[in-house]
Amino acid sequence: MNFEERLAGRTQRMTASAIREILKVASSPGVVSLAGGLPAAESFPIEIMEELTGAVLAKYGAQALQYDASEGFAPLREALVPHLAARGVTAKPDEILVFSGSQGILDTVGKIFVSPGDVVAVEAPTYLGALQAFNPYEPRYVELETDDDGLIPESLDHALATEPVKFVYLVPTFQNPTGRTLSLARRRQVAEILVRRDALLLEDDPYSDLRYAGERVPPIKSLAPEHVVYSSTLSKTFAPGLRVGFCVAPDDTRRWMAIARQGVDLHTSTLAQALSAEYVGGGYLERQLPRILEIYRPRQQAMLAALERHLPEDFRWTRPEGGMFVWVRGTAGIDTERLYPRVVERGVAFVPGKFFYVHQEDGISTMRMNFTAAGPETIDRALRIIGDVIAEELAARV
Amino acid sequence: MNFEERLAGRTQRMTASAIREILKVASSPGVVSLAGGLPAAESFPIEIMEELTGAVLAKYGAQALQYDASEGFAPLREALVPHLAARGVTAKPDEILVFSGSQGILDTVGKIFVSPGDVVAVEAPTYLGALQAFNPYEPRYVELETDDDGLIPESLDHALATEPVKFVYLVPTFQNPTGRTLSLARRRQVAEILVRRDALLLEDDPYSDLRYAGERVPPIKSLAPEHVVYSSTLSKTFAPGLRVGFCVAPDDTRRWMAIARQGVDLHTSTLAQALSAEYVGGGYLERQLPRILEIYRPRQQAMLAALERHLPEDFRWTRPEGGMFVWVRGTAGIDTERLYPRVVERGVAFVPGKFFYVHQEDGISTMRMNFTAAGPETIDRALRIIGDVIAEELAARV
Repeated sequence: MNFEERLAGRTQRMTASAIREILKVASSPGVVSLAGGLPAAESFPIEIMEELTGAVLAKYGAQALQYDASEGFAPLREALVPHLAARGVTAKPDEILVFSGSQGILDTVGKIFVSPGDVVAVEAPTYLGALQAFNPYEPRYVELETDDDGLIPESLDHALATEPVKFVYLVPTFQNPTGRTLSLARRRQVAEILVRRDALLLEDDPYSDLRYAGERVPPIKSLAPEHVVYSSTLSKTFAPGLRVGFCVAPDDTRRWMAIARQGVDLHTSTLAQALSAEYVGGGYLERQLPRILEIYRPRQQAMLAALERHLPEDFRWTRPEGGMFVWVRGTAGIDTERLYPRVVERGVAFVPGKFFYVHQEDGISTMRMNFTAAGPETIDRALRIIGDVIAEELAARV
Repeated sequence: MNFEERLAGRTQRMTASAIREILKVASSPGVVSLAGGLPAAESFPIEIMEELTGAVLAKYGAQALQYDASEGFAPLREALVPHLAARGVTAKPDEILVFSGSQGILDTVGKIFVSPGDVVAVEAPTYLGALQAFNPYEPRYVELETDDDGLIPESLDHALATEPVKFVYLVPTFQNPTGRTLSLARRRQVAEILVRRDALLLEDDPYSDLRYAGERVPPIKSLAPEHVVYSSTLSKTFAPGLRVGFCVAPDDTRRWMAIARQGVDLHTSTLAQALSAEYVGGGYLERQLPRILEIYRPRQQAMLAALERHLPEDFRWTRPEGGMFVWVRGTAGIDTERLYPRVVERGVAFVPGKFFYVHQEDGISTMRMNFTAAGPETIDRALRIIGDVIAEELAARV
């Protein structure tokens, strides 16, 4: 048996190498990367980590280093109750599960629901990491239409009416990759459709705490609690290197998720969970969040100003009130993947938008830009370079 | 669509509730549990954790809290090189992958190789957590025969000759559940068979550092490097609550493992990996290991003495030189699952051995006992209670 023959059928569905190569280039030394989704290092509460570790060991002792329940570390589940309530998600500690990042939630939901050929409905474009999580379970995707305000509810209703959708995957707030936020009116429509069609939504909400302007919008979970697995993370408001995600799911789903994840990693790092319990429950998160917003707000503004300054005026982009990304759509004929090596040559990276589409041809002219990992001046300089390369491309065509 | 219909086919294969119920009872307050596989809390280097955290933040700063490569945190991969070499496993840093516990390695190997119906060869009995990891990928199992010295190599040769085995799963040293260790002579035979049959072995080695007597035996990986994924963990020699496992795999396999795990959890907690890098590379592990052995050695001896003292003389059990478990086989007609509630009623728990078999009927009279989680006197008291219940059972039959 040679190696290729030994691989499972599903392994063929794991991400093609193009995007991996792009992200590898983006993380080369000396490259200003607008490609990643990295929080700023300055946003981490480094100065309290030793204090936090001391507090955790004093409070939990050896328990913080021991095996723990697959469902999650009890004090963290308790600390998350008011944190979720502040977002409008009502849950008892027992109804909260902790995973190794929200990626673990995506993997587990895919694992328990998707047999090969089963239908999963996703936005066009959607989060690349979700496709990476679901793909090994060999789904067939139905793409939901979006406009400048995000998902078009009628498109969801139509998909649920015509396809046997196992679950719907949405990032309704500051979406990755577009930064768009679904309005309250559309959320109400989506909730009504989910209930009427007896459908299940995986609502991925990693960014809603990163709001720099405007008013909070309640999660869809709060509008149709029995039809939504609500997923979030501490990666953007504490530290991604802890790998702590959490979810609130309907009872049946939650039970199977706990069983399934046991086979995957037993449970999430107890130490990381104990540190998170102290961070969320001890008031540290509340104090840190305004500092994080102070770092990101000027970066977001710098990004929007730089787009205005350096991109051709017939290019369009989103103007999100929060999150980490802006989404750019070039004029017809622009192929951002073709531009990519020329931009990288000059020391800047972004993600060509096609990788966020199931049907990649729909995203040829798009690109995702992150504004949290670099300072305002660096962002301006990076956009100038991208603008220059685009201008050269357009000039060469005339 | 009702809930059951929504579940994937594979979800049916996830562990039945019997063993979950047993382990839940075993962890009830007041129960002396010989059921788990928990390291002793006293074995954790709690007193150095704050110091270690300080050292890690001084050395790596924000990097220890940031997203990191799926393959693993570079300083940990480097620190593991001499650690692995001491066991006879030669690997460059790039050839080592870090996972969220060795459970993550089991899941990933299952995921990339097993299509529904594909054959995986396992020992009878084998590690329950491995079955839990592989089951969702819907393998067909071939059971390999074992005797008092572990796997019978001829049984492996026969299985590989007659079945299209995707991979073989073995725990050759201080096996879970039996505590048995495969001799060097048998390891050589196994290595020769793997090479001759061009087969792949997943060698799970969580316990080999926990040796209380006798001489180290080299891993099968060192005898057939191109045919073995070697998996180990810091759960028994640092702390399980960090969830840090690592593996050395042939090139092709390693590449796919890194891609597959990215969809599951992106990467293992950077902080946990940085602490591990400092613990392994900074000489802490070397200082802690003798202390751990000093805690476990008297417990292992107490377990063997208590078995001798309290169990009927026609019962048989293993006498492992290390690890965490002893395996007991009762006389014909003994059903350890039926004894279980009566033992628990008196405040003691173990694991009925049938759960470690693919064909559970082969393990009716067996049980697994852990000796690391309780002190010597408690172990003796627990075995006296188990002995009493067995004596009553035998008396009732006469």
